[in-house]
Order: sequence, then C-alpha cells, then structure tokens
Amino acid sequence: MKTVSDSQNVRFFSLHHQLSIKLMITALVVFLAPTHVHAAAEAEAGYIFNSFSFLLWGALVMWMCAGFTMLEAGSVRTKNASVICLKNIGLYSIAGLAYFTFGYNLMYIDVGDMIGTFKFFYSSTDAELALLAGDSGQLEAVVEDGYTTMSDWFFQMVFVATTASIISGTLAERVKLWTFFAFTFVLTAFLYPTVGAWTWGGGWLDQLGFQDFAGSTIVHSTGGWAALAGAMVVGARWGKFRKDGTVKNTPPSNVPAVTLGVFILWLGWFGFNGGSQLAMSSAADVVAMSIVLVNTNLAAAAGVIVAVSVSRQILGRVDLLAVLNGAIAGLVSITAGPDITNHVWAIVIGGVGGLISTVGIMLLERFKIDDVVGAIPAHLFAGVWGTIAVCIVAGGTLWVQLVGILAIGAFTFIGSWILWKVLDKIMGFRVSETVELLGQDVAELGIEAYPEFMLMPDHEEYEEFLSDDTK
Amino acid sequence: MKTVSDSQNVRFFSLHHQLSIKLMITALVVFLAPTHVHAAAEAEAGYIFNSFSFLLWGALVMWMCAGFTMLEAGSVRTKNASVICLKNIGLYSIAGLAYFTFGYNLMYIDVGDMIGTFKFFYSSTDAELALLAGDSGQLEAVVEDGYTTMSDWFFQMVFVATTASIISGTLAERVKLWTFFAFTFVLTAFLYPTVGAWTWGGGWLDQLGFQDFAGSTIVHSTGGWAALAGAMVVGARWGKFRKDGTVKNTPPSNVPAVTLGVFILWLGWFGFNGGSQLAMSSAADVVAMSIVLVNTNLAAAAGVIVAVSVSRQILGRVDLLAVLNGAIAGLVSITAGPDITNHVWAIVIGGVGGLISTVGIMLLERFKIDDVVGAIPAHLFAGVWGTIAVCIVAGGTLWVQLVGILAIGAFTFIGSWILWKVLDKIMGFRVSETVELLGQDVAELGIEAYPEFMLMPDHEEYEEFLSDDTK
Amino acid sequence: MKTVSDSQNVRFFSLHHQLSIKLMITALVVFLAPTHVHAAAEAEAGYIFNSFSFLLWGALVMWMCAGFTMLEAGSVRTKNASVICLKNIGLYSIAGLAYFTFGYNLMYIDVGDMIGTFKFFYSSTDAELALLAGDSGQLEAVVEDGYTTMSDWFFQMVFVATTASIISGTLAERVKLWTFFAFTFVLTAFLYPTVGAWTWGGGWLDQLGFQDFAGSTIVHSTGGWAALAGAMVVGARWGKFRKDGTVKNTPPSNVPAVTLGVFILWLGWFGFNGGSQLAMSSAADVVAMSIVLVNTNLAAAAGVIVAVSVSRQILGRVDLLAVLNGAIAGLVSITAGPDITNHVWAIVIGGVGGLISTVGIMLLERFKIDDVVGAIPAHLFAGVWGTIAVCIVAGGTLWVQLVGILAIGAFTFIGSWILWKVLDKIMGFRVSETVELLGQDVAELGIEAYPEFMLMPDHEEYEEFLSDDTK
Repeated sequence: MKTVSDSQNVRFFSLHHQLSIKLMITALVVFLAPTHVHAAAEAEAGYIFNSFSFLLWGALVMWMCAGFTMLEAGSVRTKNASVICLKNIGLYSIAGLAYFTFGYNLMYIDVGDMIGTFKFFYSSTDAELALLAGDSGQLEAVVEDGYTTMSDWFFQMVFVATTASIISGTLAERVKLWTFFAFTFVLTAFLYPTVGAWTWGGGWLDQLGFQDFAGSTIVHSTGGWAALAGAMVVGARWGKFRKDGTVKNTPPSNVPAVTLGVFILWLGWFGFNGGSQLAMSSAADVVAMSIVLVNTNLAAAAGVIVAVSVSRQILGRVDLLAVLNGAIAGLVSITAGPDITNHVWAIVIGGVGGLISTVGIMLLERFKIDDVVGAIPAHLFAGVWGTIAVCIVAGGTLWVQLVGILAIGAFTFIGSWILWKVLDKIMGFRVSETVELLGQDVAELGIEAYPEFMLMPDHEEYEEFLSDDTK
Repeated sequence: MKTVSDSQNVRFFSLHHQLSIKLMITALVVFLAPTHVHAAAEAEAGYIFNSFSFLLWGALVMWMCAGFTMLEAGSVRTKNASVICLKNIGLYSIAGLAYFTFGYNLMYIDVGDMIGTFKFFYSSTDAELALLAGDSGQLEAVVEDGYTTMSDWFFQMVFVATTASIISGTLAERVKLWTFFAFTFVLTAFLYPTVGAWTWGGGWLDQLGFQDFAGSTIVHSTGGWAALAGAMVVGARWGKFRKDGTVKNTPPSNVPAVTLGVFILWLGWFGFNGGSQLAMSSAADVVAMSIVLVNTNLAAAAGVIVAVSVSRQILGRVDLLAVLNGAIAGLVSITAGPDITNHVWAIVIGGVGGLISTVGIMLLERFKIDDVVGAIPAHLFAGVWGTIAVCIVAGGTLWVQLVGILAIGAFTFIGSWILWKVLDKIMGFRVSETVELLGQDVAELGIEAYPEFMLMPDHEEYEEFLSDDTK
Repeated sequence: MKTVSDSQNVRFFSLHHQLSIKLMITALVVFLAPTHVHAAAEAEAGYIFNSFSFLLWGALVMWMCAGFTMLEAGSVRTKNASVICLKNIGLYSIAGLAYFTFGYNLMYIDVGDMIGTFKFFYSSTDAELALLAGDSGQLEAVVEDGYTTMSDWFFQMVFVATTASIISGTLAERVKLWTFFAFTFVLTAFLYPTVGAWTWGGGWLDQLGFQDFAGSTIVHSTGGWAALAGAMVVGARWGKFRKDGTVKNTPPSNVPAVTLGVFILWLGWFGFNGGSQLAMSSAADVVAMSIVLVNTNLAAAAGVIVAVSVSRQILGRVDLLAVLNGAIAGLVSITAGPDITNHVWAIVIGGVGGLISTVGIMLLERFKIDDVVGAIPAHLFAGVWGTIAVCIVAGGTLWVQLVGILAIGAFTFIGSWILWKVLDKIMGFRVSETVELLGQDVAELGIEAYPEFMLMPDHEEYEEFLSDDTK
C-alpha cells in the first residue's frame, strides 16, 4: 500500500537547536500518534479500494459466463440449445465449488516451483475473523494484507470459470452432459490450478519471468488447449465434414443471442483485465487500470474492424460470426499485456487478433476439427499471439514467453487428452448417433429450447444419418 | 478536490510568546486543527464508500428486474410473452413511484413498533441540500449520517421492486394487466413497507431479535406469500390440471431466455446481498462484504448441483428448469445469513435450498396450485428454510425466527388474499376464457411477442376450451 | 465510522518542558510534513474515487450499446436482424477508434470558441507515465489532475458511441452497411466532437451558459437529428406508407428482446447520468450522484406510467412498444438536469417525456417519416423537452437553452443531411429493392438471424413489390 510506505518514509527536517532529548521524544510521540492513526485510516481506505475492486470487477467476470451461455446457445442448432444452457450454468457451479474445495489452495498456497498445497476449503484469515468478531486490535494486521482474503478468492474463482466456459462451446452438440461435467471438475480442481501455480502462484514460469497480465495464455489458451484436445478426441459433429471433402455450414440458430453474448463478454472483459491490476489503492494503480480498460476496448474494436474488413476476402462474404469472434479475439490478444501505454499498439495487437481468428476458422476446418463456436481460433490462437505480443512493448522476453506458451500448452493439451480418453472409457464421451440426430435437448433433457416454434427439419443430416456415410 | 484545498488552507494560529502553558494550549489547537481536517476527510471517504456501495449494488439489484423479466418471458407460452414483459417493466415503475410516494416513509421514518409515518415523498436532508448549495460548513453534519439519504432510498427501492417481481411470474398467463398493477401498487406502497417496518425499520420483530440479513423472509417470502395467495384466489390456468388428475406440462417457450434471466439474477444477487452489508467504510465491512459474495456464489452453485443431481430421481429426468430454479433457491436460502464465516455451511444451506425447490414444484402440483415459473418453491419455501437456517451458524434464535416467519407470512398472505379478492370484485382478477385461449398478447395488447415466427397451435387446450371440462 | 472515532480519541502525551520560539517552528515543520503527506493521501483517495467513477459508470454506458442492439434486433423484422447486430457492434467499434484518433482532441484539447485541436491519438500525461515508470515524485502532479487521463477518455468515448447507436435504429432495414459505417465514422470523429467542443469542451455555448448535465441535447438530440436527416434522405421502407395514405404496421419481431434492450438501457443510464457528475471525491459529489440516480429512475418510471396510461387513448390500445419507448423518453428527458433536488419534478419531467414520445410516434407517421424503433420521438423530441425543462428548477435560462437546441440542431441536421447526400452519391445510401424485399441478412451477409425457425412470408410486401405502387 503506497500511502502507508509514503508516510513511513517522511523526511524530517534537520533539528539543530538545542533541545533536550526528552523533549524530542515527546514531540515525536505527539507527532506520531495522529500520524499513525491517519496512516492506518489511509491504509484502510486502500484496503477497501483493493477489495472492492476484486469484488466488483469479479462480479463482471462472473457475468461473462452469461455471455458464453448466450453465445453458445445462439450458435448451436436449436435442438441442442437447452443442453448447452445447462452445461454452462453447471460448469460455473462446478468450477466455483471445485476451486473452493481444492483449486485455490493448489494454485496459491505455499507454491514452490510446481504446485501449491493439497488441502480442503479456503476461508478468511484468523485476523479477519477476529476483527469481524469485534477485536479492533486486529485492524492493522488485517489491513496489512492489502485486500480481503475472500475478495481475492472470488476474483480468482471467476477466472477458472472462464477457462471452463471456453470448452463447452467448441464441444457443443455432441458431448455427454455428465462427461462434460466430470471434465470440468478435474479441469477446475486440478489442471487449471497447476498452470496457475506455475505462473500467478509464483512457480517456475513466474520465476523465469513469464508475463501474462490477465491470462491470454493462463486462462484463454488453457481453455483453448483443453477444447482442442476434446475436439480431436470426440471428432466432428455428424455430417459436418462430408465424404466429398466439403464442409457443411452450420449457422447459428439465434444470431441476436450470439451478439448479446459477445457484448456481455466485452463488458465483462473490463472486469477481467481491469481487475487484474489487482489493486486500486494508489494513483498509479488507477492510472494503470484506466489504461487497461482503454486498451481492452481499443483492441476489441480493432478486432471487429479487421474481421469485418477481411472476412469478405477470406471467407467470401461479410461474416457476422467472424466479426463477433473478431471482437473476442481482439480481447484475448490484449489480455496478456493490456497495460501498455502506447494505445496504438493495442489497436495493432487487437487487429492482428481479429485477423488470426478469421483465418483460424478456415484453418481448423482444413484439419477437420469441428469447433462449433470458433473458440479455438479466438481463445487459443489469439491467446498465443497475445502472449507473444507482450514482447513488443510490454516488456516480455520472447524465449520466456515461448517456453510458457509451450509448457502450458503441452501440459494442458496432453492432460486434457488423457482425461477425455479416460472419461470416454468410464462414462462415454459422445452421445449416440440417435441422440445427436434428435438433439440432446429432447434426448437428454426431454425438453426443447423453443417448443412452440415451428422448426425446419434438417433433411440433409437425416439422410446422412440413414446412409451413414460419415462413419 | 475539496480535501486538498481544505488542508492547504489550514489556518495557523500566531505563535509569538515565550513558551508557557498558553503556548502549549495553542500548540495543541494547531495540532488538533489538521487532525480534525484529516478526520473529516477520512469520514468523508467513508461516506463516499458507503453511498457508492448503495448506488452501485443497488443498480445491480435493479438489474434483477430484467432477470425476472427474461425468466418469465421465456417461461410463459409465447402467446403471453409480451404481456409479461409489460407487467414487469410496469411493476418496476409502479414500485419505484409508490415507494417514493408512501412506502419508504412508512417503512423507515419514526417507526415505533408497527409502522412508520404516513407522509408524502422523500428527499435529501437539509444539511445535504445546504452542502450542495455551497455551504461547506454543513460537511460535518452531512458526513455524520454515514451515507447519502438518497443512496439509501435507492437501495431500499430496488428491494421492494424485487418483491413485486416475484409475483408476476407465479400468476402469469391469466391475471389482468390493470389488476396486477393495482395489486403491485398496494403491495409496494403499504404491504411490503409494513413488513419492512417491523424488521429493518426497527419495529417489534427487530426488537425481538429477528434476523434476516438481506431478506429471505422480508423480501422473498413476502413476495412468495403474495404470489401464493394470488394463485389460490385466481386458480390454475386453463387445462393445467386435468379432470383425470394428471398435470399438463407447460414447458417454457424460450429456454435460453430463462437461462439468461437466471444469470442476471445471480449477478444481481451479488448486489442484493453484498449491498445489504449497508456499509463499506471500514475494513470489517469489506471483509464481511467479501464473505457475503463468496457465500452467495457458493450457495447458488450448490443449489444448481443438488437440483441437477436430484431432479433425475424426483422428477424423472434431468430437468433444466428445476436446475435453474435450484440456483434461485440456493440464492434465496443464503440471503438471510450470507455473512457466515464457515463457507461450507453456505454450500449446505444452498444445497438444501435446491432440494426444497425441486421437491416444492411437485408439492404445489399435488395441491393443484399453478405457479408458472416455480417462484413459490424458490422464493417462499427456500426463503422459509433460509430464515430458519440462520439458527445454525449465523446466530438466529429458532423461536424468534419462527415468529418472524409466521407473523410476516400471516400478514402478507391474509393481506394479499383480501386484496386480491377486493380487486377481483372491483376490476376483475382473471382474464376471460377467450382471452386466455387466445393469449393476453393478442387480446390485451393487440400484438404478438414473435409475430413473424410460425407457432404451433395448442390443440389440446383448444379442445379443452370447447369441451369445457376444466370449469 | 470507525476512522472518525479513532482520531477523536487520540491520546496526548504530556509536554512539560520549556520550549523556545525556534523550537515551536521546528515543531511546526515536523507537524506540517505529515499534514502534507496526509493531504496527499486524501487527494490520492479522491483521485481514485473520481477515476473509478469514470471507469465503472463508463462500463455501464458501454453496456447501453448492447441495449440498443437488443432493442433494434428485436424491433426490426427477422430478415434484417443480423445486419442490425453487425451495424451495432460495428458502430461501437468505429466510434471508439474514431474518437481515439480524432474526436477527443477536437472536442476537448485547447478548444477556443468552436473546436479543439486536430491531432492524432490521445494518451496519458507525461506525469502519469513517469509515475507508472516508478517516479513517485510525480504523484502530486498526477493527483492534481483530479482523475486519470484515460478514465476520462473512456467515459467520453462511450458517450459518442451512444450518439451513434441512436441512428442505427431509425434507419434500420434499408441503409447499406458500409454507408452506415462511413456516416458513423464522420459523426464520431467530427460532427459530435464539434457539438461537444461548443458545450462540454468549453466553447461558445458553454460560455453562454448552456446547460446540459449529461446530454439530452448534446448526445441524444444530436443522435436524433442525424437520424432524422437520414430518415428524410433515405425515405421510408418499402410499403410502410401506402398510396392510400394508410400506414403499414411493422411490429417488432422479438418483443422480449426489445424489452431486454430497454432494461439494459435503463441500467446503463445510471452510469450515463451518475457518471456525468464527473467526480466522486467529496461528500457533495456523492450526494449529487445519489440524487441523479434517484431522479433518473423516477423519470423513467414516470415515462412508463404515462405512456401506459395515454397509449390507450392516443394509439387505441395499450401499446407495449410505446411504453418501452416511454421509459427511454423519460430517461432522455431527465438527462439534461438529473441533479434537481425536488424529485417530484423528475417525475413530472419524465412523465411529460413519456407523453411526448407517444404522441411523437403518430406525428412522425403523419409526416411520412419512417423511424423503425421510435428513436426520434424518444431521443430527439424528449431531448429537446429535457433541455428546456432545465429552466424549470435546474437553473437554465430559456433563451440560452433554445439557442443551444437550435444551434446544435441546425448544425447536426444540416451536417448530417449533406453527409448522407454525399455518401449516397459515393457509395449509395439505400439497398436495392430486391435486397429490401429479401432482407439485408440474406442479401448482404448470406445468413439469417433465425435460420431454423419457420417464418411467415410477408405477402403484402411481396405484392407491393410486384405492383410497385410505392415507388
């Protein structure tokens, strides 16, 4: 807390007159008493600022979950829209409980090089509890921490939920509900916390100097790698890639819902990046936070503009979905270094992100990887780019950044691959062909997302199912 | 910046005497003057923190109204989706105006045991107005209040709106627009403020020691009792309960909209419970607020997980609607005591809430009570549970909590019952059978919610209408 | 308030030695040093409060863009819903980049009477950058500014985006995508900043005493005038006004989406008006901010209630769309003077706004102006009313307000008219008749907003297209 240290470093003017030692001591005591009180009050204000920053920006990050839900529910075909809603509210709940039960401790408590402490649950410090119980003598000890224990936990928790949210979109329309939930549990209780321990927890990558302000790699690429592993293990949706090599177009069923989702994410990202300043108790902090919000917005805007401009060239038409994904890619790209002071670079970085995500969609299709919402281009590809871009003006060292990208990528990808395979053996990964044809909503939940609306049957898919030419 | 200029303009007293006792006093005054200035500045900072907490968290509670709207518009059949939108924006408006005109004064101004003051309108204090007019001498008097008068009003106002929101969902698809508005006016101007006066206003229940941190009973059960009374007076929708004893399934018409509504409520609840700490000016306050947000999130997550787990057993399938309602029930359950420091209990309390709401849906159907959105299980049943749960670790006394639950329940239920009956005589409560068959949108508003979409006619209902076997 | 009582209880140590005058001076110096430190800390807290207010309320204003998007996507026919989504995310991106590149400097940097500085880009001050780089000696210089440079920029940027948002709704369903984007660029880079320089930038209207707290005229009417000019240049949609003089009803395709949009706008308006207090560092600021939020809410509520009451008389039925527009009109009306301390006036002002917007819809139709979402009544008409209403109790001078309204109206309307005409020559303003018939989604983007849903073909329009009787 800057204000504390400032007042502790007060320069004293020389006192070169005769004074008795006792007098000096007396004067000092007089002087120090209120100083001490004020310093404490200032530290307390800083403590409130920091904690409130975590709570409020954290609440906006939680809101991103609604963004992912709308994006995904609008992107999938209507026959799977209810299940994706359930997966999203379920994953947020699982993430919160798993991170409370195991994840936070593994990520942050006594991390050596690799991993923190395996220990159940998390709670306020003894000093905080004593203060709440009325022991005002604990005030100083509490305030010394800089922020409340649980505000920090809250902010960290919503981040792990974001990681999990990325995966549900890629794997929509074909992954079993309970298998997805089981994966989410392991991801949020163990995999993400391990990556987090290496970096934000102070582990080996952090010691190496790896920089990732709000998680281009730690959050977004981690989610993207897990999604990629899942997409490769589970395979493409029925009929997505035809035998003749063509790609079946699966347009979003509800475009306004997707758009709303992206706006929610954009808003939530102010909390995601802004709150990652991790403090708001000094002028410097709030200067940095302001810069972060501005860069976040500029990068997203640039991602939109680039995507709208290039989609006509690359994809043959102005592609709204590519544009919306461009916004997300712009946001992911700036997330590793949103505190750069030259905002023109934020525009460049976000714009390149928009280009990458637009090209990335085609690239994935070429490799016959079926990513329903384009999460891999937006979160993984743009996340890698953003983490490298830290080297341009945000002070990253290229080889360190590359080591971080590769290490986290390898760990998450391989770990997820194995986990998906294991879960496939135990619970089954993919729904049956009949379920996929009927849709998970009717088959797994017994409801439809829009039961009163007349929908067009997908004849092509039905015929493919009958002729079975994609198996 | 007032604080800077104030402290720069500190007036110093002349010091031109040999040191003596008088001088010592002078020195003390000199010393005290800036102390005073700083103390004032610190108090002012606390005043800002507290007021801003009310404004910002209050804005999030207002946002819950959008959540109820989406939840309800997605839950009703499309033929009533526009009217429910109108009811919701109308009720929020009526609640705000009624609470401004009567409600707040009845709830908070000079409450003895039972009720406050019947007096029109509400406004800032004279000291605040003088300060705004430039009389900086009023600063101390203003700051002494702890928060701005109108920020407190704002926060209280959004709470009364929440109570009203609960009712519209239960009674959807059959209650006349203007009758619902009339009920809302009386509820928000008189009924809720009476309950509020007994408790948060300092009345007899508060004196007894009744504890309800953010309103499991005061807000949510009150809304639930009013909804229950209305549901019993108005009866079930056409054909909901068939003569043969079976229950007609009326699935939500727009599942993603319902899901969005629940996410909005979840986000808004951080404001609902977090802001109910009522202060943010000390480290203890922000420690408590952090704990409140964490518990709120954990309880909701537990409600989801329990509902998703038990719905298969209880309802025969994984029921997304039960899961979404489980989140709300978890939130309602923790609302009476979200400041408990052992977070594992928050999980238990929220989880039990999710169980109660899931069972409650069946229970209501057994009693042939037609609650369109499941608001009674989520808000009333879980609200009662939450208020009792305060006795576990949050320091409530069982008999006092039960007295509160019963007194508020009896008052609200009977008052609402009478009011619904009176309104039925005067204005008519229920729409005609033809309106119900056609839908309120076309019949009352002359529009459809989704006019371009082809909808499936509900043949069963039409046949029942013709055969008239439910009358 | 803990901090107050603590400092009041400062214990003093006895001073029982003789002291000389010099010693007193020494003591004074000692004493002043920490005063300085504390004053700085208090100023720093104020600096944080102010900056955070910009960031947070600004984020809520950004959220209004999602509100406009939902409102518009739900209001247009489904065949144009995707394009309107693209227009909205595009305009927000363009506005942000244009304002960064040119707009802000033109509006705020060295404005004489008419316009600021033509200069590229904007960034933090040197003192801020030095502080970030670790030079803590810059703290005082930084804090002296009152708020961070970029938080102010962020808050101003979201306002220009709001102006642009207003236009897309009025001109929906017939304006070419790229022409709209080009207009948005000029509007946000040059037109709006000019209006802004005259007023908030300190130019001639500000010197005259023109009052517009948060932009009833500067933001909302400016958007409304630009929309009106566009609507007159581009003409009505195909078949909106029939040869026989009757008006074709074009109901919103998705009423819940429109309702959600209005709730988002309402929430965002707390940021729009509340943040326009421009400071939160003193008790007076937060008193004013609280009043602003309360008035904002009351005015919107009154707009709703008046619109719901009069729409039956004026429009022949309770018109949900008029009611939703009434909320917006209430909000726009209070925006010029939301800091009035007599809240009853806020109700009156908002209520009149609701009346004006409801009447305004009919008025526009009489003049055969086709405003798809009713933005001109809600933003322009109510904006003019709100700016005049400042004279009632908020201290405005009638002739000055009228000069402001007329000058800004003339400049924006004529400027926009010319710009639309020029763009029409260069790029074409209106889509072809075939595109209009097919819808812009399919024709310009190659997608549909709801591709799986069966939609009802608009036979009337098709026949009009064939018979060509509206040309």
